[in-house]
Amino acid sequence: MITLTTDFGLKDSYVAQMKGVIRSINPDVEIVDITHQVPPQDVRGASYILDSVIDSFPKKTIHVIVVDPGVGSDREIIAAEINSQYWISPDNGLLTFPAKRFTPKKIITLTNDDYWQQNISSTFHGRDIMAPVAAHLGLGVPLSSLGEKINTEPILLDQNSPSITENEIHGEVIWIDHFGNLITDITPDEFKNSFTDSSVITVNNVKINRISKYFSEKKIGEPLAYIGSSGRLEIAIRNGNAAENMNIKPGQKVILQNKELGNN
Amino acid sequence: MITLTTDFGLKDSYVAQMKGVIRSINPDVEIVDITHQVPPQDVRGASYILDSVIDSFPKKTIHVIVVDPGVGSDREIIAAEINSQYWISPDNGLLTFPAKRFTPKKIITLTNDDYWQQNISSTFHGRDIMAPVAAHLGLGVPLSSLGEKINTEPILLDQNSPSITENEIHGEVIWIDHFGNLITDITPDEFKNSFTDSSVITVNNVKINRISKYFSEKKIGEPLAYIGSSGRLEIAIRNGNAAENMNIKPGQKVILQNKELGNN
Amino acid sequence: MITLTTDFGLKDSYVAQMKGVIRSINPDVEIVDITHQVPPQDVRGASYILDSVIDSFPKKTIHVIVVDPGVGSDREIIAAEINSQYWISPDNGLLTFPAKRFTPKKIITLTNDDYWQQNISSTFHGRDIMAPVAAHLGLGVPLSSLGEKINTEPILLDQNSPSITENEIHGEVIWIDHFGNLITDITPDEFKNSFTDSSVITVNNVKINRISKYFSEKKIGEPLAYIGSSGRLEIAIRNGNAAENMNIKPGQKVILQNKELGNN
Repeated sequence: MITLTTDFGLKDSYVAQMKGVIRSINPDVEIVDITHQVPPQDVRGASYILDSVIDSFPKKTIHVIVVDPGVGSDREIIAAEINSQYWISPDNGLLTFPAKRFTPKKIITLTNDDYWQQNISSTFHGRDIMAPVAAHLGLGVPLSSLGEKINTEPILLDQNSPSITENEIHGEVIWIDHFGNLITDITPDEFKNSFTDSSVITVNNVKINRISKYFSEKKIGEPLAYIGSSGRLEIAIRNGNAAENMNIKPGQKVILQNKELGNN
Repeated sequence: MITLTTDFGLKDSYVAQMKGVIRSINPDVEIVDITHQVPPQDVRGASYILDSVIDSFPKKTIHVIVVDPGVGSDREIIAAEINSQYWISPDNGLLTFPAKRFTPKKIITLTNDDYWQQNISSTFHGRDIMAPVAAHLGLGVPLSSLGEKINTEPILLDQNSPSITENEIHGEVIWIDHFGNLITDITPDEFKNSFTDSSVITVNNVKINRISKYFSEKKIGEPLAYIGSSGRLEIAIRNGNAAENMNIKPGQKVILQNKELGNN
Repeated sequence: MITLTTDFGLKDSYVAQMKGVIRSINPDVEIVDITHQVPPQDVRGASYILDSVIDSFPKKTIHVIVVDPGVGSDREIIAAEINSQYWISPDNGLLTFPAKRFTPKKIITLTNDDYWQQNISSTFHGRDIMAPVAAHLGLGVPLSSLGEKINTEPILLDQNSPSITENEIHGEVIWIDHFGNLITDITPDEFKNSFTDSSVITVNNVKINRISKYFSEKKIGEPLAYIGSSGRLEIAIRNGNAAENMNIKPGQKVILQNKELGNN
């Protein structure tokens, strides 16, 4: 199975061109769209999206991610193993969130053009390099045949968020979903002791008491904080659109304060 | 074959998470997206969408519908047989339109968590309960193993529309399509004698004479009424957007008058 | 494999109805969506979209295109062979761009209703005629069984663009993509000698010097012209939306001047 994640949108034929290339090489592989509506060039958002699906897909799934602001520059394209699945993407930070939970292994720079299309356009490596490489990987070509092992680490985005002080976690909104809910980079896995009944979440001057378990704990129109279905601190307005109502964009700071943890 | 209908939109990974769960359990099942752009929490609209596709799909198709304003409350999730196909959804009225044409059989409340994911989030039962149950049903698990038979009827939405008097049918707009056409809950199957040459349709003070067979019967920019491809009275503006031009939202009243049928 | 291209959008169940019909007849065929966001009734845009995918798909792929402003009129529906693939669409100009590169063969008017749905709606021939015909074609029914050979040429749209004078090529914007890039009907294949270092491209009073190879040749916010991934002259603004910034719609004239070719 191959999954596709891009910022191409659905109006054009770009995604279909990738699917045609994949199926020309590997007619039997299943292709699943993750999303093609990553905001243009939003590498961090795409990294979150991949992190949110890894647990739901079976072993050996091949994830292809084409959010590629550096196409045409000298950025590398890499393939790797992560959580017993395969990963193909530009080396530009897309691994940031998955790499917090799973160690990427066997990282290869794609250099073997035996597995590429014959003509490589300067603007569409998703179709001409990543799609055919994924198709061949699905046919059983080993990672090691696709290029050369890299000894450096893959590029990861700024690791300063979330940061923690005595009684505060400072994080950020990393994604705004279809309903206007705010998904943050703060997870209870990373900050176990901070998610207590005395937690106070602040975002753009709005203070929210408590981590709710159910939306129904708040009144319609009230903001609430909760652990979302992909294990992250999220902020919503019950039956409303938090991003619009609170005027939030990705990158907005989010602070979780916890009096129990500090000394004031 | 499994079909998916949700109000999740296409920006996020929610639909893909469901597909990953389904394929992890049942790698060979075909998954078809009906739509993921049901307006948020529009149970009646989703019910129309399902009614519009049932006739096009083969026997044993498994329809999964996740429009679920009550997630986290005590609403039930049901599975049933309808028109020799399978149905999995919250019990919240989604069966309303299909149940007018076909009797749901073997209605089961999903209670057997052997067929669920191991951890159940409080906000995403589509991924954690409905998707894995659909996957197992596709593998041959019988309906009766999924939970307990319910003896009450499934919940159906307000049945007062459409209503009929001597020479008038009062119905509603239940869906506005991509082209701005208005789909109503009035069908010629239900009101055979009312669809005559003297029919007059009124919507938001616009009167339309006659049920047209072809769009070309009216001039460009003129409103027309016709029986749409899913067998419902629809209202459109030729080469225009009726919803925008006539300022219509779902729920708008539609009146079909027919002098031949009445006494005035 | 069957591909689907329509102007139906993704909100409704129209595309899913076609898929249900196809799978009811041919359960094993793979269905790939090209796009369903062709602007309503934009035959020329849809023709470009098909031209952009033909090279990426394998032999015997069946392309079904439902952009059909003439549904209900006496326009024909045709099937044909083109580039060793199959084509099913209304005969309304959709073949325009592919027919510039490949000769359509064995053109048939669909008249044999043995391969149609039993009831034919007056507004949805995509579901009732084209989908079942594609499903049967995928099962091995020969083109010649689907109807009668036509001896006239298929309809092609206005062939006056692009036009060439001594040192100018006059073309048009035929598609605006998700990023706001402008795709034109001018190709280096057709005008080999015109793409030189002295080319000047003019669109809506904006002059662009040179055909760039990489976006990075221009500064952020600057317009550039380049040969896009489907082999056409395209115009973009680096890290910006050219269509919005330059206020361009499909049909906008584009002029490529080339002093080397002329005498002034």
